[in-house]
Amino acid sequence: MILECGLKEAGTVLAAVSGGADSLALLHSLRGTGYPLLVAHFNHQLRPEADSDAAFVRRVAEGLGLPFVTDSADVAAYAGDGGLSIEEAARELRYKFLFREARKAGAQAVATGHTADDQAETVLMHFLRGAGLSGLKGMTPRVVLPVFDAEIPLVRPLLGWTRAQTEAFCRENGQDFLTDLSNADTAYLRNKLRHELLPLLETYNPQIRQTLEKTARALQGDYELLSEVVEAAWRETATLGNGFVSFDLPGLQTLSVPLRRNLFRRAAFALRPGLRDVDFEALERAASLMPLDLAGGLRTFIEGSLFYLTGDVNKLPIDQPQISKQYSVFSIQHSEGGEVERIELEDGWVLTCENWTLDTGNWTLTSDDPFIATLDADLTAGRLRLRPFRAGDRFEPLGMPGQTVKLSDLFTNLKIPQRFRKNWPLLCVNDEIAWVAGLRMAERFKVTPQTRRGLRLRLARNG
Amino acid sequence: MILECGLKEAGTVLAAVSGGADSLALLHSLRGTGYPLLVAHFNHQLRPEADSDAAFVRRVAEGLGLPFVTDSADVAAYAGDGGLSIEEAARELRYKFLFREARKAGAQAVATGHTADDQAETVLMHFLRGAGLSGLKGMTPRVVLPVFDAEIPLVRPLLGWTRAQTEAFCRENGQDFLTDLSNADTAYLRNKLRHELLPLLETYNPQIRQTLEKTARALQGDYELLSEVVEAAWRETATLGNGFVSFDLPGLQTLSVPLRRNLFRRAAFALRPGLRDVDFEALERAASLMPLDLAGGLRTFIEGSLFYLTGDVNKLPIDQPQISKQYSVFSIQHSEGGEVERIELEDGWVLTCENWTLDTGNWTLTSDDPFIATLDADLTAGRLRLRPFRAGDRFEPLGMPGQTVKLSDLFTNLKIPQRFRKNWPLLCVNDEIAWVAGLRMAERFKVTPQTRRGLRLRLARNG
Repeated sequence: MILECGLKEAGTVLAAVSGGADSLALLHSLRGTGYPLLVAHFNHQLRPEADSDAAFVRRVAEGLGLPFVTDSADVAAYAGDGGLSIEEAARELRYKFLFREARKAGAQAVATGHTADDQAETVLMHFLRGAGLSGLKGMTPRVVLPVFDAEIPLVRPLLGWTRAQTEAFCRENGQDFLTDLSNADTAYLRNKLRHELLPLLETYNPQIRQTLEKTARALQGDYELLSEVVEAAWRETATLGNGFVSFDLPGLQTLSVPLRRNLFRRAAFALRPGLRDVDFEALERAASLMPLDLAGGLRTFIEGSLFYLTGDVNKLPIDQPQISKQYSVFSIQHSEGGEVERIELEDGWVLTCENWTLDTGNWTLTSDDPFIATLDADLTAGRLRLRPFRAGDRFEPLGMPGQTVKLSDLFTNLKIPQRFRKNWPLLCVNDEIAWVAGLRMAERFKVTPQTRRGLRLRLARNG
Repeated sequence: MILECGLKEAGTVLAAVSGGADSLALLHSLRGTGYPLLVAHFNHQLRPEADSDAAFVRRVAEGLGLPFVTDSADVAAYAGDGGLSIEEAARELRYKFLFREARKAGAQAVATGHTADDQAETVLMHFLRGAGLSGLKGMTPRVVLPVFDAEIPLVRPLLGWTRAQTEAFCRENGQDFLTDLSNADTAYLRNKLRHELLPLLETYNPQIRQTLEKTARALQGDYELLSEVVEAAWRETATLGNGFVSFDLPGLQTLSVPLRRNLFRRAAFALRPGLRDVDFEALERAASLMPLDLAGGLRTFIEGSLFYLTGDVNKLPIDQPQISKQYSVFSIQHSEGGEVERIELEDGWVLTCENWTLDTGNWTLTSDDPFIATLDADLTAGRLRLRPFRAGDRFEPLGMPGQTVKLSDLFTNLKIPQRFRKNWPLLCVNDEIAWVAGLRMAERFKVTPQTRRGLRLRLARNG
């Protein structure tokens, strides 16, 4: 009995056929089950017999009255160009071909002849490499590989068959098959496992192949459940941005430590698809919601109610006013009315300056909105400048006459994230800070009953 | 740095010390961290040097000014008596001793000197055996073993150290240690892994020990999350009875297939603690909520809104009236008033019979309660018998004069589970069914305006 793999009764199945017993057993058993078939063979051009192998598979297909497609490529050259191993290059080119043909044919799936023996070797390979649950679970009977096609699945109906069973099946069905096909994609290591390590492991457990195949199936179940739980929590708490993942911190705090660990691992792989592994201790520390270095240059840190994971702090969303250079705001003439200056800062933030006189009417002199400040223009009559924060900056805040405070303390008190501080915009009169834009103005420039002319500043973000 | 293992600063730690480098490194590092210590050594009496080893550990403890406890047992004899391997017997006796002494001393934990090398060997051993996630995750830094103590944990502070590090640590601290201690509990296989298989695996991955140790940690995280999810679903849906687990079927139906699989595996292990494994395919089929044979003689089946898992259908809760033999209810005299007969059935069910006359007063003649039936006593005047259902039984139900139906059809219509049918109590007059107890009475015995004397039957469950 082949695995059903979620195949629908109707709908072409593309069978990948190398010509070995595995793939021919696949072909015959799929045919016996009644699926419409397309036979596909990829010629890796790696062995002298490659062309005659392709011809053999063509004859088999024709003999069965099945459509046949084939293609070939210079795997060795492709590997050289791409800096890939022969194995990686062969796999990539073959799968590209198979899924391209599957799309052309409107096939419901690409089927390969992977057996329980292949599964045992795969699990063993991942075990030796330390691949974690996602690797130890081995090959699944049905999987979508988005890198080759977003929808057509790869199915492996023979995962329950041993290699010996595929050979016996071919013989029973009078089907010749090619032997000594060195499976180009994993040739060296896989052959060593097959012929050297697995026989030795059989002295420890005579049923080692079956054991590994069962391990794979059991872990697939665990993996499936785990993925489901992590995905549900991800949807609740995480947002994948461009170069960062942000988590809702209060949401994270309600989750268990193991779940947080898995979310951060999920986030690390989302940001670094090529990442091999994320150190467990780092995940454990991150799960305590501490800012730290995680893996692959990724860092976690907290801003307000957001917990970030990113490899580049500059990629985080900018939701605070920032300037990267110094602007001069010269000679605002008080004869001019209304908006007299408009300065575009970073990331859509805009500073506008307006003149105000006793005639202008119904402005309120003070505002609870920290993004608006009205200064006494007789006091600001001089050289106005907008510049970023500098270490050591101090000023006399509104409401604290005679006291100067360090801006760094102001930032800390107002919980301004560290990364925003060094580019914070300050409006200065000559060299004196008149307004820490969007946060606090200086006492000395405030509007009083004696004020006759005002300068109204407003910081806002477009769109 | 030793692992902290959740140890509190105060509270004695019992250190299990064999006299090897691992356990002496444990002792010195725990002492260095400041924990109050009790040194415990178990003499397995398996090697000629066993007594001198014990004396050595005693001298070490005394030299450090630490309290020392020891005990010994004839492991070989215990193994023979219990049908255990030497390894199993040694472990059992040693752990019993360690936890007994820990309880006596009011210790907060039993600490052992398991290292990263032990971890690698454990993971490899479980991998070869096909132990699934719970085995592949290896040893955890802190675990409660209920079979030895319900509260005192076993901790393994050296899981992050290699064996070589423990030896170096002992040398640096001028601490002699015993070598060639054959770890009695896992001697043969573990030594073979250590000296034969792991060195071979190093030719595949030179860092194989570290890799396996990392695999263990990563899988521990996954296992923890998985357990958490399964336990939460278990609390929502499962009830562990005596010999069965019942699940709330509508609750199960809301859960995903992978979660159901894990719940059924959890249930199988709860019913069969010694079970080695549950077949994945069986779990998969059970997860579709089908009745089937699972593993270890366990079966699943559905009754109403309950999904059961049991090894013995007879152990399921009996919530229906059942009789296992035939009872006779002789010669009820109508001169007697009130309750004249009381028959105790299985599992707390009781049948009572009362006489009724026109004088008796305000009884209603019929009842919507199927557990009460009033029969015309002039018609029942004969040999009353209570007997179980027999295949082929038919009767004429109340409200269907002139029609007889098969009792098996009645049971089916009323959704009486199969297992209750063969012992269903039937009240017969001579050989005619007058009342299918608790379900339906027969048309022919009903009370009419002509009825002068009645027999009132009531089926009820005590407590």
